[in-house]
Amino acid sequence: MSKKTLRIGLIGSGYMGKAHAIAFRSAPAVFELSADIELAMLADISAEQAAAKAAVMGFKRSTGDWRELVNDPDIDVVDICSPNWLHKEMALAAIAAGKHVYSEKPLALNAADARMMTEAAERAGVKTLVGFNYAKNPTVSLAREIIRSGELGDIVHFRGTHNEDYLCDPEAPFSWRLKREFSGSGTLGDMGSHIINMAQYLVGDITDVVADLKTVHKKRPIANAPGEFGEVENDDQVHLLARFANGAQGTLESSRIACGRKNSLWFEVTGTLGTLIYDQERLSELQFYSRKDAGPREGFRRILVGPEHPDYANFCVSAGHGLGYNDQKVVEVRDLVEGLCAERPMWPQFRHAYEVNRVLDAVELSHQERRWVSIEEIA
Amino acid sequence: MSKKTLRIGLIGSGYMGKAHAIAFRSAPAVFELSADIELAMLADISAEQAAAKAAVMGFKRSTGDWRELVNDPDIDVVDICSPNWLHKEMALAAIAAGKHVYSEKPLALNAADARMMTEAAERAGVKTLVGFNYAKNPTVSLAREIIRSGELGDIVHFRGTHNEDYLCDPEAPFSWRLKREFSGSGTLGDMGSHIINMAQYLVGDITDVVADLKTVHKKRPIANAPGEFGEVENDDQVHLLARFANGAQGTLESSRIACGRKNSLWFEVTGTLGTLIYDQERLSELQFYSRKDAGPREGFRRILVGPEHPDYANFCVSAGHGLGYNDQKVVEVRDLVEGLCAERPMWPQFRHAYEVNRVLDAVELSHQERRWVSIEEIA
Amino acid sequence: MSKKTLRIGLIGSGYMGKAHAIAFRSAPAVFELSADIELAMLADISAEQAAAKAAVMGFKRSTGDWRELVNDPDIDVVDICSPNWLHKEMALAAIAAGKHVYSEKPLALNAADARMMTEAAERAGVKTLVGFNYAKNPTVSLAREIIRSGELGDIVHFRGTHNEDYLCDPEAPFSWRLKREFSGSGTLGDMGSHIINMAQYLVGDITDVVADLKTVHKKRPIANAPGEFGEVENDDQVHLLARFANGAQGTLESSRIACGRKNSLWFEVTGTLGTLIYDQERLSELQFYSRKDAGPREGFRRILVGPEHPDYANFCVSAGHGLGYNDQKVVEVRDLVEGLCAERPMWPQFRHAYEVNRVLDAVELSHQERRWVSIEEIA
Amino acid sequence: MSKKTLRIGLIGSGYMGKAHAIAFRSAPAVFELSADIELAMLADISAEQAAAKAAVMGFKRSTGDWRELVNDPDIDVVDICSPNWLHKEMALAAIAAGKHVYSEKPLALNAADARMMTEAAERAGVKTLVGFNYAKNPTVSLAREIIRSGELGDIVHFRGTHNEDYLCDPEAPFSWRLKREFSGSGTLGDMGSHIINMAQYLVGDITDVVADLKTVHKKRPIANAPGEFGEVENDDQVHLLARFANGAQGTLESSRIACGRKNSLWFEVTGTLGTLIYDQERLSELQFYSRKDAGPREGFRRILVGPEHPDYANFCVSAGHGLGYNDQKVVEVRDLVEGLCAERPMWPQFRHAYEVNRVLDAVELSHQERRWVSIEEIA
Repeated sequence: MSKKTLRIGLIGSGYMGKAHAIAFRSAPAVFELSADIELAMLADISAEQAAAKAAVMGFKRSTGDWRELVNDPDIDVVDICSPNWLHKEMALAAIAAGKHVYSEKPLALNAADARMMTEAAERAGVKTLVGFNYAKNPTVSLAREIIRSGELGDIVHFRGTHNEDYLCDPEAPFSWRLKREFSGSGTLGDMGSHIINMAQYLVGDITDVVADLKTVHKKRPIANAPGEFGEVENDDQVHLLARFANGAQGTLESSRIACGRKNSLWFEVTGTLGTLIYDQERLSELQFYSRKDAGPREGFRRILVGPEHPDYANFCVSAGHGLGYNDQKVVEVRDLVEGLCAERPMWPQFRHAYEVNRVLDAVELSHQERRWVSIEEIA
Repeated sequence: MSKKTLRIGLIGSGYMGKAHAIAFRSAPAVFELSADIELAMLADISAEQAAAKAAVMGFKRSTGDWRELVNDPDIDVVDICSPNWLHKEMALAAIAAGKHVYSEKPLALNAADARMMTEAAERAGVKTLVGFNYAKNPTVSLAREIIRSGELGDIVHFRGTHNEDYLCDPEAPFSWRLKREFSGSGTLGDMGSHIINMAQYLVGDITDVVADLKTVHKKRPIANAPGEFGEVENDDQVHLLARFANGAQGTLESSRIACGRKNSLWFEVTGTLGTLIYDQERLSELQFYSRKDAGPREGFRRILVGPEHPDYANFCVSAGHGLGYNDQKVVEVRDLVEGLCAERPMWPQFRHAYEVNRVLDAVELSHQERRWVSIEEIA
Repeated sequence: MSKKTLRIGLIGSGYMGKAHAIAFRSAPAVFELSADIELAMLADISAEQAAAKAAVMGFKRSTGDWRELVNDPDIDVVDICSPNWLHKEMALAAIAAGKHVYSEKPLALNAADARMMTEAAERAGVKTLVGFNYAKNPTVSLAREIIRSGELGDIVHFRGTHNEDYLCDPEAPFSWRLKREFSGSGTLGDMGSHIINMAQYLVGDITDVVADLKTVHKKRPIANAPGEFGEVENDDQVHLLARFANGAQGTLESSRIACGRKNSLWFEVTGTLGTLIYDQERLSELQFYSRKDAGPREGFRRILVGPEHPDYANFCVSAGHGLGYNDQKVVEVRDLVEGLCAERPMWPQFRHAYEVNRVLDAVELSHQERRWVSIEEIA
Repeated sequence: MSKKTLRIGLIGSGYMGKAHAIAFRSAPAVFELSADIELAMLADISAEQAAAKAAVMGFKRSTGDWRELVNDPDIDVVDICSPNWLHKEMALAAIAAGKHVYSEKPLALNAADARMMTEAAERAGVKTLVGFNYAKNPTVSLAREIIRSGELGDIVHFRGTHNEDYLCDPEAPFSWRLKREFSGSGTLGDMGSHIINMAQYLVGDITDVVADLKTVHKKRPIANAPGEFGEVENDDQVHLLARFANGAQGTLESSRIACGRKNSLWFEVTGTLGTLIYDQERLSELQFYSRKDAGPREGFRRILVGPEHPDYANFCVSAGHGLGYNDQKVVEVRDLVEGLCAERPMWPQFRHAYEVNRVLDAVELSHQERRWVSIEEIA
């Protein structure tokens, strides 16, 4: 009768922090969750900013010191929406404090860190979830359901991209994302991690890769410092061939300079019996070809996601009405709450995110050494 | 410093009631609203159902008697999400109690009722908003902005549809929506009202119509009563030619038996300088052709809605990430709150919804008398 | 063994004349025709132009006087590709000379003329074919096959447009097409005749119409005469509601000022069991929704025309390789040859084109009198 | 005044032979060619078949012995449309006889053969053209024009596929295409050669590749021999990373088992200033994004090919009317005739096709040795 309450401590009020807050607020009305959610505390860069944002976002308390949040006894879940290079320190501190951790992706700047974080969480017995939110879209869940059901037969091919153009302008200013110290790799870790996670989710483990990366724009102007330039230390575009454990082959790409592409997380999965095509820029539809339709009426079916598909009916009872970017986070929050309360297995946990980080490291190694790299080579 | 609090009383927890609740919960985190929102009371068909739904949706109190909600002194806004035939009685009661009213569409079963409701609200000095939510989509706001700016020149043509297939199966059971007493017209009032409102929003007043309606499936089985059928009293599909005050012409259609169409609120607006095309099934994109591009590089531009367009940046800072059906309601709630608190003019008020009802009545009269009807003929 | 030879006399070497010549040349290699085709004579505006064009197009003889061609004993078929106002005189002369007639559309400037031409041909016992070429596209033949087979159930709705933008620029110069004397109606007869023919072909006879026309740009500059303007005497855009003999309803539109639309002959046909959508700008694909697919894998199928569909295999043995505008004329030429030689019934003959002209006249009458008009009213 | 006549000798009347014949017949009416074309002789597998097909296709003479055709003094151009493994012997014989050679692709089963053929032709001073017909589509010519003009800036990325599903059914019967002796590689040489040629045409020389191939269906039933299977000796799918001489990177793929893909020759070319996207299944449109449009009206422009673009006006004077597969061959024939008569440089000659064969060999070597291969390694 009386539900448990999950007390959330969120670190970071930027792009993803706001998306998390919106999701925490709407999830209980979308889904009938097994626990109540309390927006307990927000940590931000300063006490002032944290207080101001907490008021807007609906958090009860706030702090300018994330360690205070992590160690607060009235916090159950630490939600990390800080820049990438801080994930490790914050997650380890939260784990040490016995908190469950919900972290944005990529989990870490490299596989070794991700492994350390994973092992720490597993030793401590806390639960973890990583925000690969695109895999939470009901349309993508439908894709996975079709694949799992065998409707595509044996999967033989995956082609995926995650391309945007946020740095296509060479005059776009220098930032922390362009330095290895703070961001690790470039588009590879930022968007490439999404398409790698998606490939693993839909097709299974990647076992080998060969990759080619490039920093197209090697210098970028420093904002408010006329005539000064920062040196870009990581990749603008990445291309790789992958082999999967089940024998499938694939090509994956990511670019942050793909002029005109705004959120082109795009994939085509081909099996011996059919094919699926998905485009995140039209996130509520899935193209499905089945060899069962072979003959004069065959063709890709444009499926509009609806109440007969996973999770959708909780948002809307009419088909084809369309879900949005933030709705993916609502599903993710549902997975968090149900994973913590109803013992439903969570995915992707730190361990799954570590598998993404292993591929990221293998890709960079392959590029440096110009050779095929087995994921086994990455500890 | 200390914000006003708007106390919401919601009647109805079905399809639209849930959508409103989700929007009330997330709107404050999406927009920085001028008032706090309190989900004060939910009224539903029985005290039990109201209590259960209130717990899930986050309402403080609940009641099985909507009149109690309407007359509660601690309610500022009555939000009517009940079936259509109840809008009138509830709205008049709320107005009599001095409440602001936020009502789902269509406002009333006919123009006379809509006029009475409009005049009552205006006399009482309460504010009103009607849930024509498709007009709140940032992509549609962009369309209006382009039209208003003159980028299309003089508007000469509008073609719009709102087609679904929820009754395409002749075996779909009989319901209240098929009886004039409870629903008024059929697809005309249900979805036709949306496309008429959209045409008025984008092109301006409709002055004359000629229409043709049809009830294709004249009987439908009564659920759980084998062998019994209900007589369908209203239209399955409607087609009309319209003339606009500014000289433009157009065709409008609606169907609830359009096999395969899930939410085909679709329009094309043509001016002397360009054209816009919109499809609600791909609600985050707008096709834009400008004669300024004329020549060998011309073509419709596929604009993905983003932070440079109205309202979008509040949801997401990256372009092309896609908004969903429920996000439209979030914008609508923002309009409600700002209209009540910041004295921003609200649209569409009861009076604007009355103008929709006038066209609906003119359409039915035109069909009955097989002639052009001036909207002026409808009081 | 020894095939008959059809000797073609073509009048006009412009846009359509050239398309006919290309088709006559390639048709025998595409289809195994029942007769050989001889490009016997070309008539054009002057002897010089006729001779020059005949050399390029491959005609044996040429003339500057079309009456010479019509009366030449070594011509079997007179192919009329002249401007619209000349169709009548030329066709009547050809019929009087006992020739079969292949004419471009619209057959005549009004129904009375079309009827006279039809009756003359029928009395003379010559065969006729009219160039409504869009209906010859294998993709459209597939649409008709699906409708005829009953796969859509009873047809309840047709929505069709034929929109282009060739006159969207108000500075586009005055021409014969804009004068009633030479062109009759405007976009109505030019492109509207195509979409009306298509509706009749796919759905059946139109029985009643109500229409609204408009001349948006009332004056246009006269080429090479600075400061002089011609008065536009016919419609820039036309909209109509139609009722069909089988009970279906529909909306049809045509515009020559639809900015950005290049060949938007577009239709959606809805039945009780399914829907087809076609767009001439993507002329090798057909969207097909069948209620047989209803359920979680339903969606419009994008059928790419291929060898399992009508006529396609003659062009290419691989599916999805795409046919073009001129290929439609090749099918039309096949229909001409087989109709003349193999006694295969020809469609559309003058009589079918007369039925188009009747609707065109009804549309104009409806607009003038602002009322529904029965096609029966047009003799 | 009196034009030269080119006397064509065609070998093979199958899929491509027919396409060539159609093109030879219509090209003179589409373009005003510098020479007349005479369909002089057809060679086929037997004298009987050759005679029958010659009658249909319009060839004056025929033979069951291709050597007779090659050595006939009244033949100017030998057009080779035979299966791949015969190209070499036929081309060398034609060159030895002093004929110009027009050959289907791939030119040869390996680079060494292609080189020998190239050198023989160059020594003999005969002209050559190879049928990479997709590059002749006006839409693709437009893409090249845009790239050449600098409108995309520096090209940084190419992604291309050529996927079909003609062997997606594991029960599709065994054929010569599946044996190395007759076909060389599998989808790599068949369709992969098209996308490699396209990449070279649009972006420039490929310098390095790393590739991964797979034969998914290793045995296929032998037609009319129940229970017997042939062993598939070449690739069903191929994936490769490429580096270009100008610094661009890319991924290329080909598959003959891509369920649902009918002619998915698809590419995206990204530069520092813009992007082009092309899909052969919609061969008359090109998506074009330019950073010049950056801002709130930006988006990919859907350009419909028309008379302002290369070659199109010869087919049709109205934009957006759509060209088809066979029209590409008509442009190719124009290039042949003008190359031979008007000394316009021909492309792609044997030497260009040899460059394709080099990449094909490098791809296979890379796969075998699991390493990056420089094209320089292939003689």
